[in-house]
Amino acid sequence: MYRTHHCGALRISDVGSEVTLSGWNQASRDFGGLTFVDLRDRYGITQLVFNIEDDKVLAEQAGKLGREFVLKVTGVVRERSNKNPNRPTGDIEIEVKTLEILNGSKTPPFTIEDETDGGDDLRMKYRYLDMRRAPVRDNLIFRSKLAIETRKYLSDSEFVEVETPFLIKSTPEGARDFVVPSRMNPGQFYALPQSPQTFKQLLMVAGMDRYFQIVKCFRDEDLRADRQPEFTQIDCEMAFVTRDEILDTFEGLTKHLFKQTLSIDLPDFPKMSYDDAMSRYGSDKPDTRFGMEFVEMNEFTQNQGFNVFDSAELVVGIVAKGIAADYSNKDLNKLTDWMKRPQIGAKGLVYVKCNEDGSFKSTVGKFFDDAALQNWADKMGAEKGDIIFALSGEKDKTRKQLNELRLEMGRKMGLMDPKQFNPLWVVDFPLLEWDEDSNRFHAMHHPFTAPKKEDEQRMLTGDHETMKSLRADAYDLVINGVEIGGGSIRIHDRDLQSKNFDLLGFSKEEAEEQFGFLLGAFEYGAPPHGGIAFGFDRLCAVLNGVNSIRDFIAFPKNNQGRDMMIDTPSRIDDEQLKELNLDVTVAEKE
Amino acid sequence: MYRTHHCGALRISDVGSEVTLSGWNQASRDFGGLTFVDLRDRYGITQLVFNIEDDKVLAEQAGKLGREFVLKVTGVVRERSNKNPNRPTGDIEIEVKTLEILNGSKTPPFTIEDETDGGDDLRMKYRYLDMRRAPVRDNLIFRSKLAIETRKYLSDSEFVEVETPFLIKSTPEGARDFVVPSRMNPGQFYALPQSPQTFKQLLMVAGMDRYFQIVKCFRDEDLRADRQPEFTQIDCEMAFVTRDEILDTFEGLTKHLFKQTLSIDLPDFPKMSYDDAMSRYGSDKPDTRFGMEFVEMNEFTQNQGFNVFDSAELVVGIVAKGIAADYSNKDLNKLTDWMKRPQIGAKGLVYVKCNEDGSFKSTVGKFFDDAALQNWADKMGAEKGDIIFALSGEKDKTRKQLNELRLEMGRKMGLMDPKQFNPLWVVDFPLLEWDEDSNRFHAMHHPFTAPKKEDEQRMLTGDHETMKSLRADAYDLVINGVEIGGGSIRIHDRDLQSKNFDLLGFSKEEAEEQFGFLLGAFEYGAPPHGGIAFGFDRLCAVLNGVNSIRDFIAFPKNNQGRDMMIDTPSRIDDEQLKELNLDVTVAEKE
Repeated sequence: MYRTHHCGALRISDVGSEVTLSGWNQASRDFGGLTFVDLRDRYGITQLVFNIEDDKVLAEQAGKLGREFVLKVTGVVRERSNKNPNRPTGDIEIEVKTLEILNGSKTPPFTIEDETDGGDDLRMKYRYLDMRRAPVRDNLIFRSKLAIETRKYLSDSEFVEVETPFLIKSTPEGARDFVVPSRMNPGQFYALPQSPQTFKQLLMVAGMDRYFQIVKCFRDEDLRADRQPEFTQIDCEMAFVTRDEILDTFEGLTKHLFKQTLSIDLPDFPKMSYDDAMSRYGSDKPDTRFGMEFVEMNEFTQNQGFNVFDSAELVVGIVAKGIAADYSNKDLNKLTDWMKRPQIGAKGLVYVKCNEDGSFKSTVGKFFDDAALQNWADKMGAEKGDIIFALSGEKDKTRKQLNELRLEMGRKMGLMDPKQFNPLWVVDFPLLEWDEDSNRFHAMHHPFTAPKKEDEQRMLTGDHETMKSLRADAYDLVINGVEIGGGSIRIHDRDLQSKNFDLLGFSKEEAEEQFGFLLGAFEYGAPPHGGIAFGFDRLCAVLNGVNSIRDFIAFPKNNQGRDMMIDTPSRIDDEQLKELNLDVTVAEKE
Repeated sequence: MYRTHHCGALRISDVGSEVTLSGWNQASRDFGGLTFVDLRDRYGITQLVFNIEDDKVLAEQAGKLGREFVLKVTGVVRERSNKNPNRPTGDIEIEVKTLEILNGSKTPPFTIEDETDGGDDLRMKYRYLDMRRAPVRDNLIFRSKLAIETRKYLSDSEFVEVETPFLIKSTPEGARDFVVPSRMNPGQFYALPQSPQTFKQLLMVAGMDRYFQIVKCFRDEDLRADRQPEFTQIDCEMAFVTRDEILDTFEGLTKHLFKQTLSIDLPDFPKMSYDDAMSRYGSDKPDTRFGMEFVEMNEFTQNQGFNVFDSAELVVGIVAKGIAADYSNKDLNKLTDWMKRPQIGAKGLVYVKCNEDGSFKSTVGKFFDDAALQNWADKMGAEKGDIIFALSGEKDKTRKQLNELRLEMGRKMGLMDPKQFNPLWVVDFPLLEWDEDSNRFHAMHHPFTAPKKEDEQRMLTGDHETMKSLRADAYDLVINGVEIGGGSIRIHDRDLQSKNFDLLGFSKEEAEEQFGFLLGAFEYGAPPHGGIAFGFDRLCAVLNGVNSIRDFIAFPKNNQGRDMMIDTPSRIDDEQLKELNLDVTVAEKE
């Protein structure tokens, strides 16, 4: 037997017991004829002590133990004279009688401490050492707990977890699929699922009533910092259900998860329409931890001789409270440059400093006198000490730019408290987006999303312009500016579905080719249904107030889609290619 | 709102309530001015009644409802005059006030009844209709419950569920991999995991201590009736653990699952060595629900003039109790033919009928007189009315053949009670199998399996013959002749691992190329560890006393690896192939 207790288990009440522990040598030090070793496992750290007067050979052996050596010790628990109140086992230590080195270790390439000296690449390559660090380990344990609580809540709500297949059919819609060549069906391929969307709808046709799954999904997209080629979803679908029943259910899930993992009672989630979110925050995922809401300024800024504003579809601004004294002209110029970067693309940034003495300092002082600026301030609720920022131009683009500025100011001003959680539902998204380039509509959510009930007739009978104003019965859950999940009520009526495919530019044949099995299923008594999917990796990150999903993935890939630890992807044997009836058309790079 | 209750919810205590139900029209019938409709959902069936005297239009509408139409009704619960005690809702019916047809349905291609008229292929193509049938639905709900209970038990035992990656590295060992071409790394491929074996060992090196995952695995093998290209494992690994601690933990899991799903208390699981299993049952997964154990007959059958026996390495038999009177010569000849089929390949079958009158009737009567046969009977515990079956030849082959006969007789004689569950651990497997064809050893389990502690020295220092006798610290859980799971203690010592790779014919370079990342990890303080994996699909099947895992998979593939419902795999666009730097070398078949 390797242990009677974990390294986090022993307390003052165990003093006098003979115990066996196993773990890693976190650190050792000699002090006045004693050798101390911190023995670490997943559960904690226990101090071992070797006394040179009791057993010289043993104490000398202990003095030579390398970091991360794997040890098994037997000894007696005794009270520490010098207690460590920061450690649950800090009242005791083990007076070691026997020591067995279970395995040696090379010196790790970085320190196994909460704060390590290892860079990102090194830690990814030696992920198995990185994971010995408490923050990484705790993230993975947190993730496991979050999955357990998710399953508990959904099972208690009569959801059945059904495993949908991974080897499915490639469809040209949506993101790019990863494909899997089939050996038994030469020249043919499976695709890995981007989501179990069609299967969960089939499960509703099948009468499964309430389905969920915590499931891996795959997208072959160019990777950004916060994207992974494989990621995990909490995927759900319900039949005979209205939108609000779905929102209530998953608001309940979210509250349950916050309560169980963080002991936080979330308030009821407000609902905000997409239109409201865009006009108040310039974003369909507003961070509502702080105000700084958009004020539309056209009315009191246009037709006053400033051509830039006069020619703009929208003039819109925000008020940053109490920072006028802190922001020099240089700071404000830097901010203007930041807004002009290609990622944001603002042409300029108008600001008005509301000085403590009642005067104003503004980039547009030439066009607006103090009285005019005082009028701005009054209309916008700006006071002495505040700064007004304003942008102008085409509506959608300007709102997006001002959203970036609002978030940047929120960060700079410390308004994004990581301990505060502001959830909200964003609802009533547009059903269709008109794409000028391809001269067609795209589904804002996906091709099975239903229009709102009250828009159905307009959809079936309206003209082209009408289609642009249709609202989808779709919804997103947003927490602190992060989209945690989204879903919709689905179309279960064949006529409405045909109309939708028409609008999306599918011919009958294309629709049949790609979605025939689902459309076929809809002929046999499809119930009204709808669902939602949460990004599980992102949910982990948001609950912990961090941005990177990578911290919550055991073995993540880098931005080139590579696993640095196992060094994959890699070449495969010619024999394998031959069996798959494939040729590779590029030479090997060395 | 679509419903106030499910179709399985209402009872006599609800009489008088106004309710709303939604579901499918299971069946309707007219009877004396009344129309009855059975409304079905996942939870049950509720009888609706429409009275032509109350509302003629409504009743006539109800009379015309097609099977599987999706309905929403509102009405009042009332007591049935003609109660149905076989249905939980059988005491009540709904007097319908309003009826809404939520969706129509074409006539299903087979009946949606527990016993359907649909063949396998049709049911697979319309799996979403097949699933509306109670037996299929209940299997999937059972599976969900089994997963929940598995997670509950393992979480309560401090296991952490960690998601390991699906896009990993192809290795030539084991079964064939499914591969996934990487667009971002031209000419390179990921592989889908056959199991998370190396990752779970890395998690032990990482100090995760106790890992589990219910996870999809993939094998590109030629499919047999009971194989699927994607299947699910309960995958586990533990550090600082002995074999018996692992067996106790997973015996505990198995007992928990039987208790929670079937209310069965399993007895403690016996352990049987591989050698014992082979000599007593001719199988490493013996069905111990019945005896009919092997008796080795060399001692009392050889050197008595029957050359076939005399030249055989092994003469071995079984006693089938009490069937002598039931088996005519014709029956026994048929059985002999069955044994001679190429799948089994016996050269013949010796039998001895022990007649009620004390005489014997035997295929080898020419060589053995009644006194000799009486001696067989005495030695083998055969009595009047029994039949002795015997085979002879090379030891391993003969045992395998007799195992087939034993199982066949068990089936024929009704000895395999599907309500009885006989679990056992088979332990002490050989570490290595010598393969004459390739003139090398194969790992019986996998290349990381440790030899038993007491065999380590012999492994490091022994000669070629010694290697054949090494035993692995490996174990299988067998229930009713089905291997539910298996695992082993792993090698955590670099020297032992090198020796094992040597024996398995890996050069240093090959070992490095394929397993470098794991061997590298083992340099940094690998703890002693071991684990196990259960076949989750098979576990579902065994608990339900059936053979086919397909019954417990929502969307299975057929023997050609095709999903008949979504018609995949399929061709992909040339554009997609080009992005992946691939050419297909076979023409499309139409």
